[in-house]
Amino acid sequence: MTSYNNRQYRLAARPVGLPKRSDWSYVEEPARAPDDGEVLVAVEYLSLDPAMRGWMNDGKSYIPPVAIGAVMRALGVGKIVESKSDHFASGDYVSGGFGIQAYATVPAKDCTKIDPSIAPLTVYLNVLGMTGMTAYFGLLDVGEPKSGDTVVVSGAAGAVGATVGQIAKIQGCRVVGIAGGPQKCAYVVEELGFDACIDYKAANLAKSLREFCPNGIDVYFDNVGGDILEACLAQINLHARIVICGAISQYNATTPPKGPANYLSLLVNRAKMQGMIVFDYADRYGLAAREMAGWMAEGKLKSREDVVEGLETFPETLLKLFSGENHGKLVLKV
Amino acid sequence: MTSYNNRQYRLAARPVGLPKRSDWSYVEEPARAPDDGEVLVAVEYLSLDPAMRGWMNDGKSYIPPVAIGAVMRALGVGKIVESKSDHFASGDYVSGGFGIQAYATVPAKDCTKIDPSIAPLTVYLNVLGMTGMTAYFGLLDVGEPKSGDTVVVSGAAGAVGATVGQIAKIQGCRVVGIAGGPQKCAYVVEELGFDACIDYKAANLAKSLREFCPNGIDVYFDNVGGDILEACLAQINLHARIVICGAISQYNATTPPKGPANYLSLLVNRAKMQGMIVFDYADRYGLAAREMAGWMAEGKLKSREDVVEGLETFPETLLKLFSGENHGKLVLKV
Repeated sequence: MTSYNNRQYRLAARPVGLPKRSDWSYVEEPARAPDDGEVLVAVEYLSLDPAMRGWMNDGKSYIPPVAIGAVMRALGVGKIVESKSDHFASGDYVSGGFGIQAYATVPAKDCTKIDPSIAPLTVYLNVLGMTGMTAYFGLLDVGEPKSGDTVVVSGAAGAVGATVGQIAKIQGCRVVGIAGGPQKCAYVVEELGFDACIDYKAANLAKSLREFCPNGIDVYFDNVGGDILEACLAQINLHARIVICGAISQYNATTPPKGPANYLSLLVNRAKMQGMIVFDYADRYGLAAREMAGWMAEGKLKSREDVVEGLETFPETLLKLFSGENHGKLVLKV
Repeated sequence: MTSYNNRQYRLAARPVGLPKRSDWSYVEEPARAPDDGEVLVAVEYLSLDPAMRGWMNDGKSYIPPVAIGAVMRALGVGKIVESKSDHFASGDYVSGGFGIQAYATVPAKDCTKIDPSIAPLTVYLNVLGMTGMTAYFGLLDVGEPKSGDTVVVSGAAGAVGATVGQIAKIQGCRVVGIAGGPQKCAYVVEELGFDACIDYKAANLAKSLREFCPNGIDVYFDNVGGDILEACLAQINLHARIVICGAISQYNATTPPKGPANYLSLLVNRAKMQGMIVFDYADRYGLAAREMAGWMAEGKLKSREDVVEGLETFPETLLKLFSGENHGKLVLKV
């Protein structure tokens, strides 16, 4: 059999604040040959997500933390180069939890076949992958938007936010994004078709929300937490729904996070604030992906990826998520 | 016609922190005779509720604030002494929003007939009144308890909390109260039948919650906010429901309230936190009251009122709610 030279990033230490180079160890070693029921995947693209920061922390969460010394957890897409499974052949394209490495030896049952003739590979990490599923189920199942509702989305130029806003437009909602900087805001309005986008770095957020949401906020899809969550809570309508999908403003905090001081707006407005994790909707991924692929084919839904080349750039590329430098879904090309 | 000497407490100033004597003006004047469609009610008992503190503040809320110079808003029960309505006769007992006064001249349509042969008058301000409705709909509609769930209730010796816990027991839940002081905790366990009650003034709350909720918290019914909300959020289960009914710890705060710093527990646990206001369920009050009266008749549900005599004691009696001195639903006997 061929020997494949693997390259990996392993977690070396639990970060305090932003992950540093010394929190990672870079390892080169031959890829392990697949056992029965396993496949060896040549990873082509890796998904970089804000949630990865949470996986690096110790403590109870919705999935176990990445162990010190383990390959960093990440979703990826790639081509099977060796198969010891009846379900896949060499040359098949698959997605799965491959980790930050060039080759992954994984159980065949953990892989999902994907079709690069339907959409480019990177789209399977974005709109047709977990990012898209998060947006779809978070907005539709938890946010329950109705036609005519005003939907506000933070992190609007980010991978999840961009898709949330576009789906909300498809549902007939007025959609207002919140993003950092004029370039992102222009992208959100001009390319993604949001009705408005507020630059939280430049604007008075409360004033801008009043201006762009003259009928108040019915659904707030929160990717960021902190002051932006609080500003939105102050302007929700009766029976509003707040989807807690993430809190990127808090992930690298070294002091305790600040809770929303005005959470009693939930009481006054009989509103709900609900957390969501995409894994809970696994039995409906297929249905959602078919609907999203249909919207893409009709030109109603765009999938934009910010592809950075080179597995070796991972430690620095990951930080783009937290500085807000990425434009579209951040993807690492191996 | 007879002339009735009315006595009233009117709001004189918007309180800062706890309401002071000088925030009230005491007025004696003849009661106004009823016009067509109105009744004159001799008020017998008045309901004193934490929510009243919110009604004294200026600003947008779920109902308009009490105007400066207006009779303080309050629910009450009493006997009709003059009727200019076909729907009521002199001698009928009614409940309604009578305000802190001895006589109320109100539209007949705002009164609900009550039957003192079914339950003592004060019960119509407690389990069979808005307090009971708040507990019933907040727990059952928002909290959605299932048999076997662990339900935690703060303000457990308070009017709403006591009823919430008893209804949760009727639903087959494990019920843990949180209250202040050994006397209240004993009452909650021994008289109301909760499985346990934590004295938050004496106990390490986190440790006690772990001890008494070994399977975690499925429903948390919050009447208090602050540190207790945060301690409960830290121990919720997957898909838990947090009912935000009140936040008595925050109502007299003169500094901005503290939000729950660990609200991301909602994300990790895909849990929801939802506010409720009893008025939204008005079309089902009748059904709920019939079910609650049935439970009372079966001995499964107790209604305990802490009756303080004398309308003139209102300014001081109200403060018992915030010092936690009341035992059971606080009621003022006119």
